[in-house]
Amino acid sequence: MEAAIGALSESGWAGATMTVIAERAGVSRGACQHHFPTRADLVAAAVEYVGHQQVEAVIRKADKLPADARRTEAILHMLAGIYLSPVFTAAVQLWVAAVADAELRAQLAPLEARVGREFHRLTVQLLDVDDSDAEVRELIQATLDLIRGLALANLLRDDSARRKKVLHRWSLTLEKALSARRSQRA
Amino acid sequence: MEAAIGALSESGWAGATMTVIAERAGVSRGACQHHFPTRADLVAAAVEYVGHQQVEAVIRKADKLPADARRTEAILHMLAGIYLSPVFTAAVQLWVAAVADAELRAQLAPLEARVGREFHRLTVQLLDVDDSDAEVRELIQATLDLIRGLALANLLRDDSARRKKVLHRWSLTLEKALSARRSQRA
Repeated sequence: MEAAIGALSESGWAGATMTVIAERAGVSRGACQHHFPTRADLVAAAVEYVGHQQVEAVIRKADKLPADARRTEAILHMLAGIYLSPVFTAAVQLWVAAVADAELRAQLAPLEARVGREFHRLTVQLLDVDDSDAEVRELIQATLDLIRGLALANLLRDDSARRKKVLHRWSLTLEKALSARRSQRA
Repeated sequence: MEAAIGALSESGWAGATMTVIAERAGVSRGACQHHFPTRADLVAAAVEYVGHQQVEAVIRKADKLPADARRTEAILHMLAGIYLSPVFTAAVQLWVAAVADAELRAQLAPLEARVGREFHRLTVQLLDVDDSDAEVRELIQATLDLIRGLALANLLRDDSARRKKVLHRWSLTLEKALSARRSQRA
């Protein structure tokens, strides 16, 4: 799984052949193919597995989050950390390859939906908000879209200084909007 | 330029060879190479030129924007329109190719900075805000990162219904934050 993510994030869909991935993992091409009939099966499984592992890692670290006013900002940084890892680069490599490949696109669409739902649920849980409120739900979605946009900006260069400021500003704006919803419901 | 964007957005960096682009443009490979010594020169010029043209097109349409409360939302939709075009797909194809290619990355970094500044200036101009205010500047940056994230989400499928809701919600939140800054300065 890690070998597939590594090959994909560094060499793209065109470069991440079954042979390259098997070599990187130190297994035979045949062993790879026994578990995953096609390359698309293998990389889709890898993106889902590694993405899920990172969500689990965030949940494990969640009890170390501050309980005070800095909590929202700390959560945004934690979520951004997932998107800044090679699994995001691997996922973007897959997405752009799928633009020209209807078969790959059909395979990735349900995967993207599942991963998207898992990230959304994680964010709702960490922020402890009521997702049945449309305004709250849309603010959470906007937050995840923002973090994805920030991750894209980081592909070419270290964008961490700018990202820190943007996430700080967003966390204040988001917290104000969420507090207003919380007090309206209370 | 359009041929380069088309080839790049559909076939990626690996597929958008000088021969493919020249064929698509209906010119000889030699004519292409006369103007652009390398493929990286050609595609970088294409992304910058087409991106700039789209900014110009938005400026031309700016006087049709509503002057009332719906203005901010209309501006966000106009900006999202630029990111939803093939030039964004082409740019993402270039970015992911550059992850593994230091030479391409060095060539793209100043281009990305220039295009980023142009989009930022356009947004400041349309929203008619004071960019020397750090809070305003960070809110504008967050808005553009959000729009980039939304564009990425649209690569695999038509995400317009969800995007509309997210942009509506963010336009209300952004407008409230910008108004607060405006009245503090007044």
